Amino acid sequence: MAPSSPSFVARLQGRWRSGDTLLCVGLDPDTTRFPAHLRDRDDAIYAFCRAIVDATAEYACAFKPQIAYFAAARAEDQLESLIAHCRQHHPQVPVILDAKRGDIGSTAEQYAREAFERYGADAVTLSPFMGFDSIEPYLAYEGRGAFLLCRTSNAGGNDLQMLDAGGEKIYERIARLAGSTWNRSGELGLVVGATYPAELARVRELAPALPLLVPGIGAQGGDVQASVQAGQDTAGGGMAINSSRAILYADSSEAFAQRAGEVARRTRDEINRYRARPRTA
Amino acid sequence: MAPSSPSFVARLQGRWRSGDTLLCVGLDPDTTRFPAHLRDRDDAIYAFCRAIVDATAEYACAFKPQIAYFAAARAEDQLESLIAHCRQHHPQVPVILDAKRGDIGSTAEQYAREAFERYGADAVTLSPFMGFDSIEPYLAYEGRGAFLLCRTSNAGGNDLQMLDAGGEKIYERIARLAGSTWNRSGELGLVVGATYPAELARVRELAPALPLLVPGIGAQGGDVQASVQAGQDTAGGGMAINSSRAILYADSSEAFAQRAGEVARRTRDEINRYRARPRTA
Repeated sequence: MAPSSPSFVARLQGRWRSGDTLLCVGLDPDTTRFPAHLRDRDDAIYAFCRAIVDATAEYACAFKPQIAYFAAARAEDQLESLIAHCRQHHPQVPVILDAKRGDIGSTAEQYAREAFERYGADAVTLSPFMGFDSIEPYLAYEGRGAFLLCRTSNAGGNDLQMLDAGGEKIYERIARLAGSTWNRSGELGLVVGATYPAELARVRELAPALPLLVPGIGAQGGDVQASVQAGQDTAGGGMAINSSRAILYADSSEAFAQRAGEVARRTRDEINRYRARPRTA
Repeated sequence: MAPSSPSFVARLQGRWRSGDTLLCVGLDPDTTRFPAHLRDRDDAIYAFCRAIVDATAEYACAFKPQIAYFAAARAEDQLESLIAHCRQHHPQVPVILDAKRGDIGSTAEQYAREAFERYGADAVTLSPFMGFDSIEPYLAYEGRGAFLLCRTSNAGGNDLQMLDAGGEKIYERIARLAGSTWNRSGELGLVVGATYPAELARVRELAPALPLLVPGIGAQGGDVQASVQAGQDTAGGGMAINSSRAILYADSSEAFAQRAGEVARRTRDEINRYRARPRTA
């Protein structure tokens, strides 16, 4: 990495301001839900996602490809092409690779190579379950970010994350560590589900300055108003609120991308309605 | 899946008995450590791992490819070929794909497809951080196994896994759940590092019948005698004790595979020395 690589967090903050948007567009390409005219193409996943990316970039603060959908379909090459396309045509919109990796240091180095060198992602999602030494190798990449799972949007998130350990819940501990000693690079963020606004507010309290990646609105049923009010920082930013399926599969005709763009614009506008501070746009 | 797919756990138990071995051979192909004569081959990773597999199968109860090494090198096709080779030539030795996946249900379904359908692995490693609904989709694959991270071998494993929550540590809770309500398919196992024999003994107590995948001997410094004595079940089995680097990189000459076989045989023998019950071989 060049020593002067600009900070991921600063780039994301810049996009919140200049793009007047907190919407993260999630790319979970399920080929069974693709428009019929695309399904038989060899590069269907790339073609679908590229069209979505081009139609929604204007309204997006970040793109978040979910690597499982590419891996299950043997389409790593299409993920490479997609991220390259994003970087070339929408360089102002960072790409967060949703991979939720978590492994010992020597293996984490390989996963970091995969995310940052092979795919060229700007940031990656990680699981903190194995502790700080499983996070550290990613911090060595200057200008790249890492979002740690903290309070996930699924029901099973209760099973471990809500346990009380010495007066604080597991997710609170992760938020506190990510907001302090673990954040050596200044490039950490947290994943907190929109389905749990009370915990979102608590995480914002424990880590006032950290960017939050917030899945769970749209198909998962999280409440936009409650999430924005709970998670925004003092500047009315601080969140990348993800929507995947509600945008991707808004329409299954040949006009799917145009319709996805419209849903993205409306979602961006709905999010902005609840931001506390005047926007600059 | 055919309704009569034989149980993964039963196959692993069968291999412990018939092969008289608890050694799991870990496949972490780091091309920078390959013998010089292999390094420039386009299929170097496959060629290296296939030679290791063929030389060690006799002494192995399982193979454990670590997917990060393949993904970082853009070598998913070589991983496919490698597992296909294992299934064809060493069908008695199950393949555990070390991927440590963990995500919401809809995404977990994609990762399960990747592990079991694309790669044809017999079992996969998973992170329990997101709770039971992130594990459940893997259990739908009859005859396939899943090892949940419980007490990992790295120092950072202390950061969350050793926290006390309501009188039991997080790793104890995971062991208890995996040994009871979560084990709906009967195909769960646990990952417990050889570097922590006291916790290995505690996990064996909480989950007497579960297969344990035990990394951390060899390069990571775990103690074989202490691990076997702490983790074996009442039949002197119950563990797949992993060694990766000490076997893979025992020698960097053209005789690397032969030497790997010798180290595997010696490691198998060392493990067997501490098993409590007479072996059948």
